[in-house]
Amino acid sequence: MGSVKVAIIGFGTVGSGVARLLLEHGERIARHVGRRVELAHVVDVDLTRPRNITLPPGVLTSDLDRVLNDPEVVAVVQLVGGIEPERTIMLRVLESGKDVITANKALLAEHGPELFDAARRLGRSIAFEAAVAGGIPIIAAMSESLAANQIESIHAILNGTSNFILTQMEEENASYAEALAEAQRRGYAEANPTMDVDGSDSAQKLAILAHLAFGARVNWREIPRTGIDTVDVADMRYARELGYAIKLLAVANLVPEGLELHVSPTLVRRGTPLAEVRGAYNAIRLVGDAVGRLFFQGLGAGQMPTASAVVADLIGTLVGRTPITFNMLKLWSDQTAARVMPRDPAQVPGRFYLRFNVADRPGVIAEIAGVLGRKSISISSVIQHETAEDATDVVPLVFMTHTASEGAMAEAMSIIDRLPSVRPPSVRMRVRD
Amino acid sequence: MGSVKVAIIGFGTVGSGVARLLLEHGERIARHVGRRVELAHVVDVDLTRPRNITLPPGVLTSDLDRVLNDPEVVAVVQLVGGIEPERTIMLRVLESGKDVITANKALLAEHGPELFDAARRLGRSIAFEAAVAGGIPIIAAMSESLAANQIESIHAILNGTSNFILTQMEEENASYAEALAEAQRRGYAEANPTMDVDGSDSAQKLAILAHLAFGARVNWREIPRTGIDTVDVADMRYARELGYAIKLLAVANLVPEGLELHVSPTLVRRGTPLAEVRGAYNAIRLVGDAVGRLFFQGLGAGQMPTASAVVADLIGTLVGRTPITFNMLKLWSDQTAARVMPRDPAQVPGRFYLRFNVADRPGVIAEIAGVLGRKSISISSVIQHETAEDATDVVPLVFMTHTASEGAMAEAMSIIDRLPSVRPPSVRMRVRD
Repeated sequence: MGSVKVAIIGFGTVGSGVARLLLEHGERIARHVGRRVELAHVVDVDLTRPRNITLPPGVLTSDLDRVLNDPEVVAVVQLVGGIEPERTIMLRVLESGKDVITANKALLAEHGPELFDAARRLGRSIAFEAAVAGGIPIIAAMSESLAANQIESIHAILNGTSNFILTQMEEENASYAEALAEAQRRGYAEANPTMDVDGSDSAQKLAILAHLAFGARVNWREIPRTGIDTVDVADMRYARELGYAIKLLAVANLVPEGLELHVSPTLVRRGTPLAEVRGAYNAIRLVGDAVGRLFFQGLGAGQMPTASAVVADLIGTLVGRTPITFNMLKLWSDQTAARVMPRDPAQVPGRFYLRFNVADRPGVIAEIAGVLGRKSISISSVIQHETAEDATDVVPLVFMTHTASEGAMAEAMSIIDRLPSVRPPSVRMRVRD
Repeated sequence: MGSVKVAIIGFGTVGSGVARLLLEHGERIARHVGRRVELAHVVDVDLTRPRNITLPPGVLTSDLDRVLNDPEVVAVVQLVGGIEPERTIMLRVLESGKDVITANKALLAEHGPELFDAARRLGRSIAFEAAVAGGIPIIAAMSESLAANQIESIHAILNGTSNFILTQMEEENASYAEALAEAQRRGYAEANPTMDVDGSDSAQKLAILAHLAFGARVNWREIPRTGIDTVDVADMRYARELGYAIKLLAVANLVPEGLELHVSPTLVRRGTPLAEVRGAYNAIRLVGDAVGRLFFQGLGAGQMPTASAVVADLIGTLVGRTPITFNMLKLWSDQTAARVMPRDPAQVPGRFYLRFNVADRPGVIAEIAGVLGRKSISISSVIQHETAEDATDVVPLVFMTHTASEGAMAEAMSIIDRLPSVRPPSVRMRVRD
């Protein structure tokens, strides 16, 4: 049995997880590759920070050129976050004749087409299973196992941090701030959690999935998105009363009018698999025209689940499977990119959950219902609980609507928020049955 | 864009689904293959039965030799059930230099090693995603996406017919016979449903998964199995009262003592994903040492879900991905087959649900509990409901145990069933929390 050399750039959490698999389970990986996989170099700017794996002497280096100039290294695992210098480094790695495995979804969502084109021009491949939904093999499913299907819809929980926070709010009756603090304490949320909780991270991952599923080259910044930082624990309680859980859903829905894309906190009906996804898990529900409904759930982040996906890609690259798929993806996107266009977000229909803070006086329900009615939005249910004697004069009023367009809904909300009896901000969330 | 020729043997439900995908969605498939896929021959003994797809003239034939002797046909989709002549036909197809795609799990469970060895000797491949869990890409996940993991356990619902029947019994309060009749009416169960409902079909699929996950060459006949034909609607009600649903679970569990394998109706705790799988769906929960817990759910049978898996395999075969994986599986099984041995079923531990029909007189609970105690089986809960005035003198008595071995449990049951106050047959099911 011969051997083959690989390198890791970025010796952080996931990088050391990958090193652990290569060093501690080398025999297992060699069985799949047919050769021993030798970890020749690990590049990081920080040579001293303690990690939970000890590298053989001479492997850790801060010198990227040691990788680029080693002709025996055939594949490079690139595991640093951010856009630059990561983009430049990836281009240099490809130019040096090595295949790339990455988990950097921000980089792919931002510069995917450029990097993919460069790799193809150079006869190289980029594998990115770990960029979306961590340990769930959703990239392989979309690009290989479901190749006979037209994917019709994707409904996904793609950010484990947000799902952990929402679960804490629901199960522990915690406020958003308390749940976020708990997520940070447990290492699920970073010190600056903005990209996770404002929906950007989910939108980046959705852009990648939409590219695979629909051939649509979507700019993630153009995906309408709302984060969980606006969700109040009161909405959690009303949702439960109505038979729903609140989840940060990333949605791609192919309809005759185009591709509907959005990321937003959504009321998901209890008893459906997505509603029951708790804690730091990710999940994807998709519908294909042949396969029907499929559901995947697993850990979307963390050292070893992500390393599992990275090493699967590394094995696929070394045995030659990944380059074949990478070439197939090219065919797919070239021929369909122009066909599927995002639908105007204002036209995207759905049911909505609405919560208003209103003055506790007669006629307010009629006033709000009147605005909704004039925008042709019909109401499926209303909740107004009896107020306590000592309550303030502002009370919450909750509506669930039948199907309405995003645009009509936004117009109605803007009119309602200017009513004298309404105290903005009001809350609006999508509903998924 | 060039073209490549393929053939289908077996123009039944799945075969016509595959033909539909190839003929009606040829453009989609060509994008993934890089060539047009031409359906050159469809072989079936029945040339007249109506199907929901019309083949081009000259394609349908009853002459297998037209496939074997056509040097341009590179891959054959073989979709006939049963063992012979299917085994012989597959060997002849391989010998004629063509790759095989099959959904025949019985054939693989029975003759997999022989057929795989023949394919390797001839430099050919056999793809079988559709043989287990229909449209769920579990074979790809196990053999490719999870290659960095040691799989530690599999808990799966692998027979959609059984799951449909159990769901009907639970949700409609139907008897087993009524639910089976409904499954037959809807086409989920065959006229002779024995292999589905007695656990054999699940055991065959479990044998294939265990081969992939643990390198264990298991004879499916040696997997202890109990079917759902023994489940009474009364057990459904007690299970619900205890917070569980009854599912036909196929289990493979790697422990230091060996590989625990069994198929049996099992009480699965409500709120866990497996307990919530309803209707004709399949689901697989697996644990890998790196990836952690993964859960897959989808349609396990049916024309188009199965055809989706078959055509994905066909595409993988035509682009050259499948032969690579097929070769990797060889490495895996050759080197580990001897390491993982099935554990003695009598030693496999678990919690149990027990239901006895007992004479309604004092001291019976103590008598049964005494037998369990002498076998060191401790009781976690007991249900005996007050009997109606007009009840017979035989009443049900339900126990849940703490962890005990299968062997101790069987011995205790055999003693209890001989007690004068007990009216056999008694019911014993495994419990999964």
